[in-house]
Amino acid sequence: NINLTRLKSNILKIGEIGRKKGEGITRLAFSDVYYKASDVFKDLMKDAGLKVKTDRLGNVFGKREGKNNDLPSIMIGSHMDTVKNGGLFDGNLGVNAALECIYVLEENNIKTKHPIEIVSFNAEEGSEMGGTFGSRVMVGLQDPLENGLADKLKKYGLTLDDVKSSIRNTSEIKAFLELHIEQGGDLFSKDIPIGIVKGIAGITRYRISALGEANHAGTTPMNLRKDAMMGASKLMVEIEKIAKSMGAPFVATIGVTDVFPGAVNIIPGRVELILEMRDLNQERIEKAVNKIKKSAQSIGEVDFKFELLINKPPVKTSRRIVQCIEEACIDKNIPYQIMASGAGHDAKAIANKVPTGMIFVPSKDGKSHCPDEWTDWEDIKKGTEILLDTIIRLDRI
Amino acid sequence: NINLTRLKSNILKIGEIGRKKGEGITRLAFSDVYYKASDVFKDLMKDAGLKVKTDRLGNVFGKREGKNNDLPSIMIGSHMDTVKNGGLFDGNLGVNAALECIYVLEENNIKTKHPIEIVSFNAEEGSEMGGTFGSRVMVGLQDPLENGLADKLKKYGLTLDDVKSSIRNTSEIKAFLELHIEQGGDLFSKDIPIGIVKGIAGITRYRISALGEANHAGTTPMNLRKDAMMGASKLMVEIEKIAKSMGAPFVATIGVTDVFPGAVNIIPGRVELILEMRDLNQERIEKAVNKIKKSAQSIGEVDFKFELLINKPPVKTSRRIVQCIEEACIDKNIPYQIMASGAGHDAKAIANKVPTGMIFVPSKDGKSHCPDEWTDWEDIKKGTEILLDTIIRLDRI
Ligand SMILES: NC(=O)NCCC(=O)O
Ligand SMILES: NC(=O)NCCC(=O)O
Repeated sequence: NINLTRLKSNILKIGEIGRKKGEGITRLAFSDVYYKASDVFKDLMKDAGLKVKTDRLGNVFGKREGKNNDLPSIMIGSHMDTVKNGGLFDGNLGVNAALECIYVLEENNIKTKHPIEIVSFNAEEGSEMGGTFGSRVMVGLQDPLENGLADKLKKYGLTLDDVKSSIRNTSEIKAFLELHIEQGGDLFSKDIPIGIVKGIAGITRYRISALGEANHAGTTPMNLRKDAMMGASKLMVEIEKIAKSMGAPFVATIGVTDVFPGAVNIIPGRVELILEMRDLNQERIEKAVNKIKKSAQSIGEVDFKFELLINKPPVKTSRRIVQCIEEACIDKNIPYQIMASGAGHDAKAIANKVPTGMIFVPSKDGKSHCPDEWTDWEDIKKGTEILLDTIIRLDRI
Repeated sequence: NINLTRLKSNILKIGEIGRKKGEGITRLAFSDVYYKASDVFKDLMKDAGLKVKTDRLGNVFGKREGKNNDLPSIMIGSHMDTVKNGGLFDGNLGVNAALECIYVLEENNIKTKHPIEIVSFNAEEGSEMGGTFGSRVMVGLQDPLENGLADKLKKYGLTLDDVKSSIRNTSEIKAFLELHIEQGGDLFSKDIPIGIVKGIAGITRYRISALGEANHAGTTPMNLRKDAMMGASKLMVEIEKIAKSMGAPFVATIGVTDVFPGAVNIIPGRVELILEMRDLNQERIEKAVNKIKKSAQSIGEVDFKFELLINKPPVKTSRRIVQCIEEACIDKNIPYQIMASGAGHDAKAIANKVPTGMIFVPSKDGKSHCPDEWTDWEDIKKGTEILLDTIIRLDRI
C-alpha cells in the first residue's frame, strides 16, 4: 500500500534541489539551497496534515497526533543536507519515506496510540561543528560550552542561544527510526534488499607523525637517510596488513597526509598522517592501535608519535527494535540481513539517548557521496514498507 | 701564503649579511639583502684592484688583467644567494676564496698569462626561474623564448632584455673553477679535506600518480578498496629498495606528495608523488625508472601513471682540470678523493660550455642549507690553497 509513484515524485521534488549538471547534488548544511529544500518539505508536511515546527538550527519536525498525546512520539526521519557533489538518496530518502508512511496511515485511517513525528535534520554531513550536528544538539550531546563553538556558529549566523533552544527533552521520544541507503556494497553484491542495523561503528582517529631528519636529496646517500616519507610508507603498508587481519567490519583509512618541508629536493624530515579506524567493538580498535604502535617501533630509522584526535565509541541499536524490523521482514517475506553500519548517521547520535532502529537499502555498486549514488526504486519501496510496518509494531509495544 | 685571518674576516663580512638570530642566514636571490651583500663584495674587489662589472641579473664580475689580455679568462667563483634559513658557507665560501687568491697573487707579484675573472652569481639556489639562473643565462643555457619566462622575470622587476644582455660569449672563458662545501657527509666522515669533483649528478623527476577509487572510509570493506594511498605506499617502499640496490651515487627521493580528495573519512582515489633520482650516469637513472615502472605494475588494485617533469643529464668536469687539482693536492701533500657531486651547482651549468673544475671541502655532519652548516677553517684554508695552485697550473696550459 506504499504509493511508489508518489514517493518517487517527492524524492525527486526535494532531492533534485541543488543539482548542477554533471556535478551531482550540492545541498550543504545552512546553505540557501538547503533552506529552500526544507521549505518545500515543510509545505508537503502541512499538506499531509502534520503540525510543522522548525528549530533555530534548521531541523524540521512534523507531528501527527496519536490516540494518546501524553505518550512520547515515535520519531522517524533522516537528514536533508548533502555533501558537496553528492547523490539523490543520502538523507533525502529517509525523510521522504517517513512522509510516505504518514500518507499511507492517513489513507488507511490508521490512528496510532503514540504521536508520530517526522524529522528532517540539518548538518548531518558536516559543517564547522562536525557531523550530525542537528541530531546531536536535539538529544543534548552537543556541549554548548565547547571551546570555540560560538565562533564556529557565527559563520552560519547562529548563536549559542540557538543551540540551547534546540535541545529537546528526550523523554518526549519513545523511539527513533531511520531508513537510509547502505552506502557500502554489501547488500547490493548479495542482492539482499534490507539491512537491519545492529550497531554503528565507533570512529577513532590518530595523527601519526613520522619524525626523521630533513636533508639534501642530492648529497645524502641512501644508507645515511632518516627519511620520514619512507618510514611513513612502511607504516602505512603495515597498517593495511593489520586492518585486513582484524577482519570485517574493522576498517582503517589514511585519507590525509602532510609532508615537511615538502620540496622536491629535500628528504622529508616529518610526515603526518591521519589514521581513521572503525569497528563495532571499541576494544578491537584499541587492539589494532596497539599492533600498529608496535609495528611502528620495529621500523627503525624514523620515530613515530601518536596523537589521539577523536575517539567516538560505537553504539548499539535497540534489540527490541531490531526484532520488530526482523518480524516485519519475515511477515512480508522480504529477504534481510542483520549488519553493522560503518558510516555515522543521525541514528548514531540519537541511539545514545533514545531506543533507535535503522533500516538499510542497497547502494548500487556501493557508491555514495557522489553523483552516481543509486538505489533501485523497488528496493526503496520495500524499505519504506518495512519502515511503516515497524512503526505499527512499535506503536503496539 | 693564504691569509686565513683575512679570508675568515671577508667570509664573515659578506656571509653574515642576512642572519636572523636563531634562524640562520637568509639572502634570497634578488632580495635587498642579496644586493647589499653584492655591493659590499664589489667594494672589496675594487679595493683589491679589480675591474668590477655587474650584469642586469645581479651577477657580479671582477677582472684582473693578464700578461696577454687577448687570451680568454680563467673564471673563478660561486654564488652569493642562499636558501631560506641557510648557513654561512654555501656559495659565499667560493666567492671569497676566489678573492683571497687575487690578494695572494698581488702580494706575490704573480702576473698570470691569462686574465683572471672572479664571478659571484645570483639565483643559484632557485627562484621562479629555477636553480643556477645566473650562471645558466651567462653561458647561454637559458632560452629567452621559454614559455612564461617574461612573467616570472616580472616578479623580480626584470625583462627579457635583461636576460639577453647578460649572455656572455663563452669563448672569452678558458676555464671555470668553483670551490664549494660538499654538503654531503662523505669527506667529513672519512676525514679527507679535499674532494675533486669528477662529475655532477643528473637530475630526473617524475610525477607519479597512483590512481585508485575514492570511496567511503566507513562503508567500504578492506578487501573491496582501490586505495591510492596504500598503492602509493607500496610503490614508495619498492622505490627505496630499488634505489639502494643501484648503489651510490644513485639516490631517489620523494619529497612531495598530494592526496585527493584529502579528507579523513574518504579513501584516497588519487595520490601524486614527485620522484627525484640522481646519478652520474644517465643510463643508470633510466634503468632505475624501468625497474620502478615494472614494480608499479605488479602492485595491482591501483594503476600508476608516470609523467616526466625534468631530465637534466649529468655533466663531467674537465679531465684536464681534475688532473691539475690532483697534482696540486699531491704537491702540497693534502689528502683528497675524486668523487661525484650529488648537488647541482653553477659549475654544472657552466661545464656544458666551458672546461670546468670543482673542489669540495668537508661539511660537518654532512649538513647544509641549514643554520648548522659548518666547515673547519683549516679545511677552508686548504681548499683555497688548492684553488690558487690550480689557477696557476691552468694558466700554464
Ligand atoms: N553517513 C555518512 O556518510 N556519514 C558521514 C560521516 C562518516 O561516517 O564518515
Ligand atoms: N648545491 C645545491 O644545494 N643546489 C641546490 C640544487 C640541488 O642540487 O637540489
